Amino acid sequence: MDETSHPDAGVLLDLDGTLVDSVHQHVVAWRAALLAAGHDVPQWRIHAGIGMGSDRLVPWLLGGHVDGADAIADDHTERFLATTDQLRPTRGARELLDDLERRGVPWIIATSAGSDERTALLEVLGRVDAPVTDADGVDSSKPAPDLVLTAAQQVGVAVGRARVVGDSPWDAIAAVRAGARPVGVACGGFHPRALLAAGAVRVVDEPIDLIGQL
Amino acid sequence: MDETSHPDAGVLLDLDGTLVDSVHQHVVAWRAALLAAGHDVPQWRIHAGIGMGSDRLVPWLLGGHVDGADAIADDHTERFLATTDQLRPTRGARELLDDLERRGVPWIIATSAGSDERTALLEVLGRVDAPVTDADGVDSSKPAPDLVLTAAQQVGVAVGRARVVGDSPWDAIAAVRAGARPVGVACGGFHPRALLAAGAVRVVDEPIDLIGQL
Repeated sequence: MDETSHPDAGVLLDLDGTLVDSVHQHVVAWRAALLAAGHDVPQWRIHAGIGMGSDRLVPWLLGGHVDGADAIADDHTERFLATTDQLRPTRGARELLDDLERRGVPWIIATSAGSDERTALLEVLGRVDAPVTDADGVDSSKPAPDLVLTAAQQVGVAVGRARVVGDSPWDAIAAVRAGARPVGVACGGFHPRALLAAGAVRVVDEPIDLIGQL
Repeated sequence: MDETSHPDAGVLLDLDGTLVDSVHQHVVAWRAALLAAGHDVPQWRIHAGIGMGSDRLVPWLLGGHVDGADAIADDHTERFLATTDQLRPTRGARELLDDLERRGVPWIIATSAGSDERTALLEVLGRVDAPVTDADGVDSSKPAPDLVLTAAQQVGVAVGRARVVGDSPWDAIAAVRAGARPVGVACGGFHPRALLAAGAVRVVDEPIDLIGQL
Protein backbone atom coordinates (compact mmCIF):
# COMPACT_ATOMS: atom_id res chain seq x y z
CA MET A 1 0.00 0.00 0.00
CA ASP A 2 1.68 3.18 -1.09
CA GLU A 3 0.66 6.52 -2.56
CA THR A 4 1.52 5.44 -6.10
CA SER A 5 -0.75 2.44 -6.19
CA HIS A 6 -3.59 4.25 -4.44
CA PRO A 7 -3.25 7.93 -5.07
CA ASP A 8 -6.66 8.93 -3.80
CA ALA A 9 -7.31 10.71 -0.57
CA GLY A 10 -10.12 9.34 1.50
CA VAL A 11 -11.88 9.47 4.84
CA LEU A 12 -12.09 6.75 7.47
CA LEU A 13 -14.72 7.35 10.12
CA ASP A 14 -15.16 5.95 13.58
CA LEU A 15 -18.77 5.05 14.39
CA ASP A 16 -19.48 5.07 18.15
CA GLY A 17 -19.39 8.59 19.53
CA THR A 18 -18.34 10.02 16.17
CA LEU A 19 -21.35 9.32 13.95
CA VAL A 20 -23.74 8.16 16.70
CA ASP A 21 -24.15 9.90 20.05
CA SER A 22 -23.57 6.80 22.16
CA VAL A 23 -20.63 7.32 24.51
CA HIS A 24 -22.57 8.02 27.68
CA GLN A 25 -24.74 4.93 27.11
CA HIS A 26 -21.57 2.88 26.73
CA VAL A 27 -20.10 4.30 29.95
CA VAL A 28 -23.25 3.54 31.94
CA ALA A 29 -23.48 0.03 30.43
CA TRP A 30 -19.84 -0.74 31.23
CA ARG A 31 -20.30 0.69 34.70
CA ALA A 32 -23.27 -1.57 35.38
CA ALA A 33 -21.57 -4.65 33.93
CA LEU A 34 -18.42 -4.02 35.98
CA LEU A 35 -20.40 -3.40 39.17
CA ALA A 36 -22.39 -6.59 38.60
CA ALA A 37 -19.06 -8.44 38.43
CA GLY A 38 -17.89 -6.82 41.65
CA HIS A 39 -15.68 -4.08 40.22
CA ASP A 40 -16.40 -0.48 41.30
CA VAL A 41 -14.73 1.44 38.47
CA PRO A 42 -15.19 5.23 38.33
CA GLN A 43 -17.15 6.36 35.30
CA TRP A 44 -14.67 9.07 34.34
CA ARG A 45 -12.07 6.32 33.98
CA ILE A 46 -14.43 4.20 31.89
CA HIS A 47 -15.16 7.23 29.71
CA ALA A 48 -11.42 7.74 29.23
CA GLY A 49 -11.13 4.19 27.90
CA ILE A 50 -14.03 4.38 25.45
CA GLY A 51 -12.77 4.10 21.88
CA MET A 52 -10.20 1.42 22.47
CA GLY A 53 -11.18 -2.12 21.48
CA SER A 54 -13.57 -3.64 23.99
CA ASP A 55 -11.14 -6.57 24.33
CA ARG A 56 -8.67 -4.06 25.78
CA LEU A 57 -10.94 -2.00 27.98
CA VAL A 58 -11.50 -4.31 30.95
CA PRO A 59 -7.81 -5.20 31.39
CA TRP A 60 -6.92 -1.50 31.01
CA LEU A 61 -9.41 -0.50 33.69
CA LEU A 62 -8.61 -3.31 36.11
CA GLY A 63 -4.86 -3.29 35.69
CA GLY A 64 -4.29 -6.51 33.77
CA HIS A 65 -5.88 -9.78 32.79
CA VAL A 66 -9.09 -10.55 34.64
CA ASP A 67 -11.04 -13.78 34.69
CA GLY A 68 -14.51 -13.13 33.38
CA ALA A 69 -13.57 -10.17 31.17
CA ASP A 70 -15.45 -11.66 28.23
CA ALA A 71 -18.57 -12.11 30.33
CA ILE A 72 -18.33 -8.49 31.47
CA ALA A 73 -18.04 -7.37 27.83
CA ASP A 74 -21.06 -9.47 26.88
CA ASP A 75 -23.06 -8.04 29.76
CA HIS A 76 -22.07 -4.54 28.64
CA THR A 77 -23.26 -5.27 25.11
CA GLU A 78 -26.61 -6.54 26.32
CA ARG A 79 -27.12 -3.49 28.51
CA PHE A 80 -26.00 -1.13 25.76
CA LEU A 81 -28.33 -2.68 23.18
CA ALA A 82 -31.24 -2.11 25.57
CA THR A 83 -30.66 1.65 25.17
CA THR A 84 -30.70 1.92 21.39
CA ASP A 85 -34.05 3.73 21.36
CA GLN A 86 -32.18 6.62 23.03
CA LEU A 87 -29.48 6.83 20.37
CA ARG A 88 -29.39 9.42 17.61
CA PRO A 89 -26.81 10.43 15.00
CA THR A 90 -24.36 13.10 16.05
CA ARG A 91 -25.05 16.52 14.57
CA GLY A 92 -24.28 16.48 10.86
CA ALA A 93 -23.25 12.79 10.73
CA ARG A 94 -25.68 11.85 7.98
CA GLU A 95 -25.07 15.07 6.07
CA LEU A 96 -21.30 14.57 6.22
CA LEU A 97 -21.58 11.15 4.56
CA ASP A 98 -23.91 12.64 1.91
CA ASP A 99 -21.37 15.42 1.36
CA LEU A 100 -18.48 12.99 0.88
CA GLU A 101 -20.49 11.01 -1.66
CA ARG A 102 -21.58 14.12 -3.54
CA ARG A 103 -17.95 15.20 -3.80
CA GLY A 104 -16.70 11.75 -4.77
CA VAL A 105 -14.48 11.33 -1.74
CA PRO A 106 -13.95 7.65 -0.86
CA TRP A 107 -15.04 6.88 2.70
CA ILE A 108 -15.52 3.93 4.97
CA ILE A 109 -16.58 3.37 8.54
CA ALA A 110 -13.82 1.80 10.64
CA THR A 111 -15.23 0.45 13.87
CA SER A 112 -14.24 -2.16 16.39
CA ALA A 113 -17.85 -2.53 17.60
CA GLY A 114 -19.15 -6.10 17.60
CA SER A 115 -21.64 -7.10 14.92
CA ASP A 116 -24.81 -6.62 16.99
CA GLU A 117 -23.73 -3.18 18.13
CA ARG A 118 -22.57 -2.27 14.63
CA THR A 119 -25.92 -3.21 13.14
CA ALA A 120 -27.80 -1.17 15.76
CA LEU A 121 -25.58 1.87 15.25
CA LEU A 122 -25.87 1.75 11.46
CA GLU A 123 -29.65 1.58 11.82
CA VAL A 124 -29.57 4.70 14.00
CA LEU A 125 -27.48 6.35 11.31
CA GLY A 126 -29.92 5.27 8.59
CA ARG A 127 -27.03 3.64 6.72
CA VAL A 128 -27.37 -0.10 7.12
CA ASP A 129 -25.50 -0.61 3.82
CA ALA A 130 -22.60 1.72 4.60
CA PRO A 131 -19.11 0.46 3.75
CA VAL A 132 -17.66 -0.84 7.00
CA THR A 133 -14.36 -2.31 8.06
CA ASP A 134 -15.05 -4.13 11.23
CA ALA A 135 -12.81 -5.76 13.78
CA ASP A 136 -13.29 -9.26 12.30
CA GLY A 137 -10.09 -10.24 10.57
CA VAL A 138 -8.17 -7.37 12.16
CA ASP A 139 -5.40 -8.67 14.38
CA SER A 140 -5.26 -5.98 17.00
CA SER A 141 -7.91 -3.44 18.01
CA LYS A 142 -7.53 0.33 18.48
CA PRO A 143 -5.22 1.99 19.45
CA ALA A 144 -3.24 -0.46 17.27
CA PRO A 145 -3.05 0.77 13.66
CA ASP A 146 -4.48 -2.44 12.13
CA LEU A 147 -8.07 -1.27 11.70
CA VAL A 148 -6.97 1.97 10.05
CA LEU A 149 -4.61 0.14 7.68
CA THR A 150 -7.26 -2.40 6.74
CA ALA A 151 -9.91 0.27 6.19
CA ALA A 152 -7.63 2.32 3.93
CA GLN A 153 -6.79 -0.75 1.89
CA GLN A 154 -10.43 -1.78 1.64
CA VAL A 155 -11.58 1.62 0.37
CA GLY A 156 -8.53 1.94 -1.89
CA VAL A 157 -6.82 5.01 -0.52
CA ALA A 158 -3.23 5.62 0.42
CA VAL A 159 -3.13 5.61 4.19
CA GLY A 160 -0.79 8.59 4.10
CA ARG A 161 -3.55 10.55 2.40
CA ALA A 162 -6.34 9.31 4.61
CA ARG A 163 -8.07 11.37 7.28
CA VAL A 164 -9.33 9.46 10.27
CA VAL A 165 -12.30 11.13 11.93
CA GLY A 166 -12.81 10.05 15.52
CA ASP A 167 -14.06 11.28 18.87
CA SER A 168 -11.57 9.56 21.15
CA PRO A 169 -7.83 9.82 21.75
CA TRP A 170 -7.58 6.12 20.84
CA ASP A 171 -8.76 6.90 17.30
CA ALA A 172 -6.11 9.56 16.97
CA ILE A 173 -3.35 7.31 18.30
CA ALA A 174 -4.35 4.50 15.92
CA ALA A 175 -4.34 6.95 13.01
CA VAL A 176 -0.90 8.31 13.85
CA ARG A 177 0.51 4.81 14.20
CA ALA A 178 -0.91 3.92 10.79
CA GLY A 179 0.55 7.04 9.19
CA ALA A 180 -2.85 8.66 8.57
CA ARG A 181 -4.02 12.09 9.67
CA PRO A 182 -6.39 12.17 12.63
CA VAL A 183 -9.18 14.73 12.83
CA GLY A 184 -10.96 14.94 16.16
CA VAL A 185 -14.60 15.61 16.95
CA ALA A 186 -15.41 16.69 20.50
CA CYS A 187 -18.94 15.25 20.49
CA GLY A 188 -17.90 12.06 22.28
CA GLY A 189 -17.21 14.09 25.39
CA PHE A 190 -13.42 14.13 25.11
CA HIS A 191 -11.80 17.53 25.58
CA PRO A 192 -10.07 19.01 22.51
CA ARG A 193 -6.84 19.10 24.54
CA ALA A 194 -7.00 15.33 24.99
CA LEU A 195 -7.52 14.81 21.26
CA LEU A 196 -4.69 17.17 20.31
CA ALA A 197 -2.40 15.51 22.84
CA ALA A 198 -3.14 12.16 21.16
CA GLY A 199 -2.08 13.55 17.79
CA ALA A 200 -5.20 15.06 16.21
CA VAL A 201 -4.16 17.66 13.63
CA ARG A 202 -7.46 19.46 14.03
CA VAL A 203 -10.45 19.26 16.37
CA VAL A 204 -13.99 20.43 15.66
CA ASP A 205 -17.13 20.06 17.73
CA GLU A 206 -19.24 17.77 15.56
CA PRO A 207 -19.41 16.19 12.08
CA ILE A 208 -21.48 19.15 10.89
CA ASP A 209 -18.33 21.25 11.20
CA LEU A 210 -16.51 19.01 8.70
CA ILE A 211 -18.98 19.27 5.82
CA GLY A 212 -17.11 20.50 2.77
CA GLN A 213 -13.84 20.30 4.70
CA LEU A 214 -12.55 16.75 4.09
CA MET B 1 -19.43 38.09 56.88
CA ASP B 2 -15.76 38.94 57.06
CA GLU B 3 -12.58 37.26 58.13
CA THR B 4 -12.63 38.90 61.53
CA SER B 5 -16.01 37.58 62.58
CA HIS B 6 -15.38 34.11 61.10
CA PRO B 7 -11.67 33.49 61.12
CA ASP B 8 -11.87 29.76 60.44
CA ALA B 9 -11.01 28.17 57.16
CA GLY B 10 -13.42 25.56 55.94
CA VAL B 11 -14.42 23.33 53.08
CA LEU B 12 -17.60 23.49 51.02
CA LEU B 13 -18.22 20.40 48.90
CA ASP B 14 -20.37 19.83 45.87
CA LEU B 15 -22.27 16.52 45.99
CA ASP B 16 -23.21 15.25 42.49
CA GLY B 17 -20.12 14.15 40.58
CA THR B 18 -17.82 15.27 43.40
CA LEU B 19 -18.75 12.96 46.28
CA VAL B 20 -21.00 10.59 44.29
CA ASP B 21 -20.14 9.19 40.86
CA SER B 22 -23.38 10.25 39.20
CA VAL B 23 -22.66 12.54 36.24
CA HIS B 24 -23.12 10.00 33.47
CA GLN B 25 -26.46 8.89 34.94
CA HIS B 26 -27.56 12.52 34.98
CA VAL B 27 -26.52 13.02 31.36
CA VAL B 28 -28.41 9.93 30.21
CA ALA B 29 -31.48 10.92 32.26
CA TRP B 30 -31.50 14.47 30.85
CA ARG B 31 -30.97 13.07 27.38
CA ALA B 32 -33.98 10.78 27.69
CA ALA B 33 -36.19 13.49 29.22
CA LEU B 34 -35.26 15.98 26.49
CA LEU B 35 -35.80 13.41 23.73
CA ALA B 36 -39.20 12.49 25.19
CA ALA B 37 -40.11 16.18 24.95
CA GLY B 38 -38.96 16.34 21.34
CA HIS B 39 -35.52 17.90 21.85
CA ASP B 40 -32.51 16.06 20.38
CA VAL B 41 -29.70 17.56 22.46
CA PRO B 42 -26.19 16.09 22.10
CA GLN B 43 -24.96 14.40 25.25
CA TRP B 44 -21.59 16.15 25.22
CA ARG B 45 -23.50 19.44 25.49
CA ILE B 46 -25.65 18.10 28.31
CA HIS B 47 -22.49 16.92 30.11
CA ALA B 48 -21.01 20.40 29.71
CA GLY B 49 -24.03 21.87 31.49
CA ILE B 50 -24.04 19.46 34.42
CA GLY B 51 -23.27 21.30 37.66
CA MET B 52 -25.31 24.39 36.99
CA GLY B 53 -28.69 24.57 38.70
CA SER B 54 -31.24 22.34 37.00
CA ASP B 55 -33.50 25.40 36.64
CA ARG B 56 -30.81 26.83 34.34
CA LEU B 57 -29.86 23.75 32.35
CA VAL B 58 -32.82 23.38 29.98
CA PRO B 59 -32.85 27.06 28.92
CA TRP B 60 -29.06 26.95 28.52
CA LEU B 61 -29.26 23.88 26.29
CA LEU B 62 -32.23 25.03 24.24
CA GLY B 63 -31.21 28.66 23.86
CA GLY B 64 -33.75 30.38 26.08
CA HIS B 65 -37.03 29.94 27.88
CA VAL B 66 -38.92 26.81 26.87
CA ASP B 67 -42.47 25.87 27.75
CA GLY B 68 -42.42 22.60 29.63
CA ALA B 69 -38.92 23.02 31.09
CA ASP B 70 -40.18 22.13 34.56
CA ALA B 71 -41.80 18.95 33.24
CA ILE B 72 -38.53 18.00 31.53
CA ALA B 73 -36.65 18.55 34.81
CA ASP B 74 -39.18 16.42 36.70
CA ASP B 75 -38.90 13.66 34.09
CA HIS B 76 -35.10 13.81 34.43
CA THR B 77 -35.37 13.44 38.20
CA GLU B 78 -37.64 10.42 37.91
CA ARG B 79 -35.32 8.74 35.42
CA PHE B 80 -32.24 9.59 37.48
CA LEU B 81 -33.74 8.23 40.70
CA ALA B 82 -34.40 4.93 38.90
CA THR B 83 -30.61 4.51 38.56
CA THR B 84 -29.59 4.98 42.20
CA ASP B 85 -28.66 1.31 42.63
CA GLN B 86 -25.83 2.02 40.17
CA LEU B 87 -24.41 4.93 42.16
CA ARG B 88 -21.36 4.73 44.38
CA PRO B 89 -19.24 7.31 46.21
CA THR B 90 -16.33 8.74 44.26
CA ARG B 91 -12.96 7.38 45.30
CA GLY B 92 -12.04 8.72 48.72
CA ALA B 93 -15.25 10.71 49.22
CA ARG B 94 -16.17 9.10 52.54
CA GLU B 95 -12.59 9.09 53.73
CA LEU B 96 -12.17 12.79 52.90
CA LEU B 97 -15.13 13.72 55.10
CA ASP B 98 -13.74 11.53 57.88
CA ASP B 99 -10.37 13.24 57.46
CA LEU B 100 -11.87 16.73 57.71
CA GLU B 101 -13.72 15.77 60.90
CA ARG B 102 -10.64 14.19 62.44
CA ARG B 103 -8.68 17.37 61.76
CA GLY B 104 -11.45 19.66 63.00
CA VAL B 105 -11.93 21.41 59.67
CA PRO B 106 -15.47 22.78 59.29
CA TRP B 107 -17.20 21.38 56.21
CA ILE B 108 -20.59 21.41 54.58
CA ILE B 109 -22.12 20.00 51.44
CA ALA B 110 -23.37 22.71 49.08
CA THR B 111 -25.66 21.25 46.47
CA SER B 112 -28.43 22.50 44.25
CA ALA B 113 -29.90 18.99 43.88
CA GLY B 114 -33.59 18.74 44.73
CA SER B 115 -34.59 17.08 47.99
CA ASP B 116 -35.34 13.62 46.57
CA GLU B 117 -32.04 13.51 44.70
CA ARG B 118 -30.18 14.91 47.68
CA THR B 119 -31.58 12.22 49.98
CA ALA B 120 -30.65 9.47 47.51
CA LEU B 121 -27.12 10.81 47.07
CA LEU B 122 -26.51 11.17 50.81
CA GLU B 123 -27.65 7.58 51.27
CA VAL B 124 -25.14 6.45 48.66
CA LEU B 125 -22.50 8.40 50.55
CA GLY B 126 -23.57 6.83 53.84
CA ARG B 127 -24.00 10.31 55.31
CA VAL B 128 -27.72 10.94 55.60
CA ASP B 129 -27.08 13.38 58.45
CA ALA B 130 -24.33 15.38 56.75
CA PRO B 131 -24.50 19.16 57.06
CA VAL B 132 -26.06 20.38 53.82
CA THR B 133 -26.88 23.75 52.36
CA ASP B 134 -29.41 23.07 49.71
CA ALA B 135 -30.96 25.24 47.04
CA ASP B 136 -34.07 25.98 49.15
CA GLY B 137 -33.87 29.55 50.31
CA VAL B 138 -31.02 30.34 47.92
CA ASP B 139 -32.04 32.99 45.42
CA SER B 140 -30.01 31.95 42.42
CA SER B 141 -28.44 28.58 41.59
CA LYS B 142 -24.88 27.82 40.46
CA PRO B 143 -22.95 29.40 38.78
CA ALA B 144 -24.34 32.29 40.86
CA PRO B 145 -22.38 32.70 44.12
CA ASP B 146 -25.44 32.48 46.39
CA LEU B 147 -25.12 28.82 47.37
CA VAL B 148 -21.44 29.23 48.23
CA LEU B 149 -22.10 32.35 50.31
CA THR B 150 -24.97 30.69 52.17
CA ALA B 151 -22.95 27.54 52.81
CA ALA B 152 -19.99 29.49 54.20
CA GLN B 153 -22.28 31.46 56.49
CA GLN B 154 -24.08 28.32 57.67
CA VAL B 155 -20.87 26.50 58.60
CA GLY B 156 -19.37 29.67 60.07
CA VAL B 157 -16.32 30.21 57.91
CA ALA B 158 -15.07 33.32 56.16
CA VAL B 159 -15.84 32.80 52.50
CA GLY B 160 -12.42 34.21 51.62
CA ARG B 161 -10.88 31.32 53.55
CA ALA B 162 -13.18 28.66 52.17
CA ARG B 163 -12.20 26.03 49.63
CA VAL B 164 -14.95 24.91 47.31
CA VAL B 165 -14.42 21.37 46.06
CA GLY B 166 -16.30 20.62 42.86
CA ASP B 167 -16.14 18.56 39.69
CA SER B 168 -17.66 21.04 37.25
CA PRO B 169 -16.62 24.42 35.86
CA TRP B 170 -19.89 25.80 37.27
CA ASP B 171 -18.70 25.04 40.80
CA ALA B 172 -15.45 26.87 40.16
CA ILE B 173 -17.21 29.89 38.66
CA ALA B 174 -19.62 30.10 41.60
CA ALA B 175 -16.69 29.89 44.03
CA VAL B 176 -14.74 32.64 42.28
CA ARG B 177 -17.80 34.89 42.22
CA ALA B 178 -18.27 34.32 45.94
CA GLY B 179 -14.64 35.10 46.69
CA ALA B 180 -13.80 31.53 47.73
CA ARG B 181 -11.04 29.31 46.38
CA PRO B 182 -12.16 26.57 44.00
CA VAL B 183 -10.44 23.20 43.98
CA GLY B 184 -11.36 20.92 41.09
CA VAL B 185 -11.77 17.15 40.98
CA ALA B 186 -11.69 15.53 37.54
CA CYS B 187 -13.90 12.59 38.52
CA GLY B 188 -17.04 14.15 37.06
CA GLY B 189 -15.59 13.76 33.59
CA PHE B 190 -14.57 17.38 33.09
CA HIS B 191 -11.07 17.92 31.76
CA PRO B 192 -8.61 19.64 34.14
CA ARG B 193 -8.16 22.35 31.50
CA ALA B 194 -11.87 23.17 31.68
CA LEU B 195 -11.71 23.40 35.47
CA LEU B 196 -8.60 25.57 35.45
CA ALA B 197 -10.15 27.82 32.79
CA ALA B 198 -13.15 28.30 35.09
CA GLY B 199 -10.88 29.45 37.90
CA ALA B 200 -9.87 26.34 39.83
CA VAL B 201 -6.63 27.02 41.69
CA ARG B 202 -5.79 23.33 41.71
CA VAL B 203 -7.20 20.18 40.11
CA VAL B 204 -6.80 16.62 41.34
CA ASP B 205 -8.34 13.41 40.06
CA GLU B 206 -10.57 12.39 42.95
CA PRO B 207 -11.38 13.21 46.58
CA ILE B 208 -8.83 10.61 47.71
CA ASP B 209 -6.15 12.97 46.42
CA LEU B 210 -7.32 15.70 48.81
CA ILE B 211 -7.06 13.75 52.05
CA GLY B 212 -4.82 15.66 54.42
CA GLN B 213 -4.61 18.51 51.92
CA LEU B 214 -7.52 20.81 52.80
